[in-house]
Amino acid sequence: MPNYHKPESKTVQELKDIAHRLRIHSITSTQASKSGHPTSCASIAEIMSVLFFHTMRYKVSVPRDASSDRFILSKGHAAPILYAAWAEAGLFPVADLQNLRKVDSDLEGHPTPRLNFIDVGTGSLGQGVAVACGMAYVGKNFDRAAYRTYVLVGDGESAEGSIWESLHFAGHYKLNNLCVIFDVNRLGQSEPTSLQHQMEVYRKRLESFGFNAIVVDGHDIEELCKAFFEASNTADRPTAIIAKTFKGKFFPNIEDLENWHGKPLGDQADPVIKHLAGLINNAGTLQIAPQKPLNDDAPVVDISNIQLASPPSYKLGESVATRLAYGTALAKIAVNNARVIALDGDTKNSTFSEKLKKAFPDRYIECFIAEQNLVGVAIGAACRDRTVAFVSTFATFFTRAFDQIRMGAISQTNVNFVGSHCGVSIGEDGPSQMGLEDIAMFRTVPGSTVFYPSDAVSCERAVEIAANTKGICFIRTSRPNTAVIYSNEEVFQIGKAKVVRKSQNDQVLIVGAGITLYEALSAANELEKSGVNVRIIDPFTIKPLDNETIIANALQCGGRVITVEDHYKEGGLGEAVMSALALQRNVVVKQLAVPRVPRSGPPNVLIDMFGISARNIVSAVAEILKL
Amino acid sequence: MPNYHKPESKTVQELKDIAHRLRIHSITSTQASKSGHPTSCASIAEIMSVLFFHTMRYKVSVPRDASSDRFILSKGHAAPILYAAWAEAGLFPVADLQNLRKVDSDLEGHPTPRLNFIDVGTGSLGQGVAVACGMAYVGKNFDRAAYRTYVLVGDGESAEGSIWESLHFAGHYKLNNLCVIFDVNRLGQSEPTSLQHQMEVYRKRLESFGFNAIVVDGHDIEELCKAFFEASNTADRPTAIIAKTFKGKFFPNIEDLENWHGKPLGDQADPVIKHLAGLINNAGTLQIAPQKPLNDDAPVVDISNIQLASPPSYKLGESVATRLAYGTALAKIAVNNARVIALDGDTKNSTFSEKLKKAFPDRYIECFIAEQNLVGVAIGAACRDRTVAFVSTFATFFTRAFDQIRMGAISQTNVNFVGSHCGVSIGEDGPSQMGLEDIAMFRTVPGSTVFYPSDAVSCERAVEIAANTKGICFIRTSRPNTAVIYSNEEVFQIGKAKVVRKSQNDQVLIVGAGITLYEALSAANELEKSGVNVRIIDPFTIKPLDNETIIANALQCGGRVITVEDHYKEGGLGEAVMSALALQRNVVVKQLAVPRVPRSGPPNVLIDMFGISARNIVSAVAEILKL
Repeated sequence: MPNYHKPESKTVQELKDIAHRLRIHSITSTQASKSGHPTSCASIAEIMSVLFFHTMRYKVSVPRDASSDRFILSKGHAAPILYAAWAEAGLFPVADLQNLRKVDSDLEGHPTPRLNFIDVGTGSLGQGVAVACGMAYVGKNFDRAAYRTYVLVGDGESAEGSIWESLHFAGHYKLNNLCVIFDVNRLGQSEPTSLQHQMEVYRKRLESFGFNAIVVDGHDIEELCKAFFEASNTADRPTAIIAKTFKGKFFPNIEDLENWHGKPLGDQADPVIKHLAGLINNAGTLQIAPQKPLNDDAPVVDISNIQLASPPSYKLGESVATRLAYGTALAKIAVNNARVIALDGDTKNSTFSEKLKKAFPDRYIECFIAEQNLVGVAIGAACRDRTVAFVSTFATFFTRAFDQIRMGAISQTNVNFVGSHCGVSIGEDGPSQMGLEDIAMFRTVPGSTVFYPSDAVSCERAVEIAANTKGICFIRTSRPNTAVIYSNEEVFQIGKAKVVRKSQNDQVLIVGAGITLYEALSAANELEKSGVNVRIIDPFTIKPLDNETIIANALQCGGRVITVEDHYKEGGLGEAVMSALALQRNVVVKQLAVPRVPRSGPPNVLIDMFGISARNIVSAVAEILKL
Repeated sequence: MPNYHKPESKTVQELKDIAHRLRIHSITSTQASKSGHPTSCASIAEIMSVLFFHTMRYKVSVPRDASSDRFILSKGHAAPILYAAWAEAGLFPVADLQNLRKVDSDLEGHPTPRLNFIDVGTGSLGQGVAVACGMAYVGKNFDRAAYRTYVLVGDGESAEGSIWESLHFAGHYKLNNLCVIFDVNRLGQSEPTSLQHQMEVYRKRLESFGFNAIVVDGHDIEELCKAFFEASNTADRPTAIIAKTFKGKFFPNIEDLENWHGKPLGDQADPVIKHLAGLINNAGTLQIAPQKPLNDDAPVVDISNIQLASPPSYKLGESVATRLAYGTALAKIAVNNARVIALDGDTKNSTFSEKLKKAFPDRYIECFIAEQNLVGVAIGAACRDRTVAFVSTFATFFTRAFDQIRMGAISQTNVNFVGSHCGVSIGEDGPSQMGLEDIAMFRTVPGSTVFYPSDAVSCERAVEIAANTKGICFIRTSRPNTAVIYSNEEVFQIGKAKVVRKSQNDQVLIVGAGITLYEALSAANELEKSGVNVRIIDPFTIKPLDNETIIANALQCGGRVITVEDHYKEGGLGEAVMSALALQRNVVVKQLAVPRVPRSGPPNVLIDMFGISARNIVSAVAEILKL
């Protein structure tokens, strides 16, 4: 490690002054908005001052610069001091801070990437470290650049298990370019944290998770400067700086007291500001300024126009699981773009993401059985368009990371999620392993695209399209083999359904996807024998749904529609179709879906037992013809 | 600690024999089902043998006996050996094990409470410790009984952050009646675990989380017996037994090798069984039998017929937030039943669960900011009808525990969830804090009841009804104050909506709930001025929805329906109403809902900006009248 040189006393004094200025901004901005968390800002004022004006190397005027150090405020409710730091650094006028939380300002209550200096949204606690891990992993292994990633975590949120998933990940992959700062200010929202100021407990935990753990006085500028220096010069491990701090530090009659969480100071604001102003040595222009990156060493990357290296290559009628086609397509799109990566949670031999690992071992990130961190790492890896990330696990296990996925939309992420093992058609493993709420979950995500490819050809194209689509994409894959029904040349588009069976006198429209599309086709053959013709649509994407095609065909089929899905009744394909048809008079929709918790058994038996088989469809057609 | 006496060598030999018998059953049953995880069973055979035939005290014939020790198999995929242990203990014939995973058997692929010896479903990894914590907390603090709780965790699943949330909880509350066994068998599903056999890393982590951590050879009967004795006699802390084991132990050519996860042994089964049979000393009848509880010290509890101690007491028009009414009702239902408990994740002063804490401090469990453990502890606390548990946090933070909630349905739990701060109407805190997918999420849960009370009176009744309702209940509460619109005597029922505004010539039916019900009422007043009458329904429960009332009123209003909700478009109130009306010809539904990620701003501004205000409703009425 190089020798450490203490900062000059003038520098230390100026960093102290900046900390107090940040405190004052945090108070005045939350006074203006009449809401916010000034005491949660006060505990990190020295940390922010040292990071932004001494330690970090970044271009103030280009906040998303590829070679600049990254900062993530995991405790997003301290947003006012983050905004204040960027304003003091010179990105925008300090006066703008008074627009905090106003509807026409992007200085929101919690940070979002509507601001150009925010990479990911925070505010749901415990998510920042995972994202930082993703960014640090990319910096170390893909960009191979000098920039460092800093993430500031509250002690309250360190109770979130997601944090410990991420710390383990960082330790395991020896992310020495990552520095996690714990703001141990002792107080949660409604009572003291469970560990309060037990600094040694934090140290032991962090060390056991593979960190260089440094306990400091979080209000001591010199200790902080030294700790960050040590962090930057620790080559074999990530560093955790565990800062003992006080909530509301330097706020007389407020510091370290309960019942001050998430409250502006009200009539205490003026005396506190006066007190803080008195602590500032030099109220004039700043002498120190943020340091620029030493060099622009992060490569320029291009993640546009990603294509399958070769088109789908199947025979019509060939039996291939869509989960397998996913793996095939993933490896193919990775051929011509080195920034296509895959992440999985120890299910790669079931989801077939292992095909990417086999083809390009360095571009596969094993995240082990920790789905929250898995999703967070992907969001971090994909932000600022550094990679095209595909994340896979069993569809139902994405429920574990719903909060991270939800926040992903706020973070404007482009991560692609691929969930295998959907529905009762997985069979004997039973309900705990069956994805039966995944369509509902991903449909709720603003701006999401939900693919549900029914055969291998359409699945390969779904993967290719998802790689080039903004926003969150979800691809639902199935465990059983299904027949290839599309030619290798078939063209697929988001929001464009396929009419896969049609006659001149169809009496009912059936909409199915995945295994239920095949049940519908079987039912159609059966019904034809008794003289009943039905039309069948494969939607390809459930969101956006091809409303136009569905409406037109529904009307052509006497306004009789049956939906059939290997999913619970709520929020899935059936309700999506109802929504498409909601403004049509003279249309009825009969929904077939899994009505209750399923059980273990052979796939075909379960499909019938839970009401989504060809036999069930034939019965439903008979019923709807009476309406 | 009392002196430890080693088991007699005859006992040790018999426990070894039992372990091998359990291995053989695990092989033969997975051979019969042609699927399953025999190697994951083999690593825990000695642990299961010692627990079920030496350490645990339980009544074999009454598996849910209140005073018996509890066992949770967190690594649920090892179900075959758990079933084998109960069969060998005498609960059911060993021959039944051959029905594993058959559709007409409850011996499912992963354990569910369809079996009387299973308290909670497992199979989604990382959830067992939270449930065990809930059971142990009840045993120690409410039942104050001698029974102990054992939970067996796989090393792969110990990467799940939820485990570390729970370990922290157990350490913090010094649950000395809890014993967590880690099966460190080194191999995950698709590759070795990240820590493999680094036993000292596990030890340090567990110690730093407040455990008495004991590393043992997990295949050594005597070491296990001694460790469990030490666990039972450790008074100040929970104990973790960290067992070094091998996957497929005693399976020649399979033990400790990769690529054997989740596979029956196929043609290797016969030679392996022969090898195991050769290791058994005494193939005859067992001499040892499970030990019974020392006494029946767990109290008989009655959680039926829970009532508000006093009826709602509000004035019509009074302004009260439903979140506040929740707290009031919670404290009231707790008055006459000592088993009503509340749990929260450090938001009790926002959700108002603090009212229960203030009234009955011992019946409030602070779970800090760790929502997955929060939900798991509640499921554990409520199982076997020991308590009536209410869990609260911000509605959107339940997304963090979607997997636990989903598994709760499989576990047949009766936990009640209360989510505050729904929708854009929370205002300035911004999108990360807004519940906009919670209705969709809870609607997908099989058997769930989703309450969305619009005023304080209906909210109090929702709490009372939920306390007496089987299955998962969710109560959505709002942050802003809203007017009391129901008299204190109003009667509410699940699936019964209220028509809150009606005339003889209504042209449109509007369905709203929470703040949008008030927007609808304002719109109706505005519309009346221009001669347009509208009918308004408050659904009270979104699931089950009062289909009959909605259909009848929709038809009476010319088949024109508008839904308006402070929720995203997918899976919420709008789609629930569409589903209710799906089989009606000649009805149209226009949906008003939040269409994209919102932002910070004043509640009233956001309500209008995101399309769910009275003004938006008036516009929608004009549009739907053209259809």
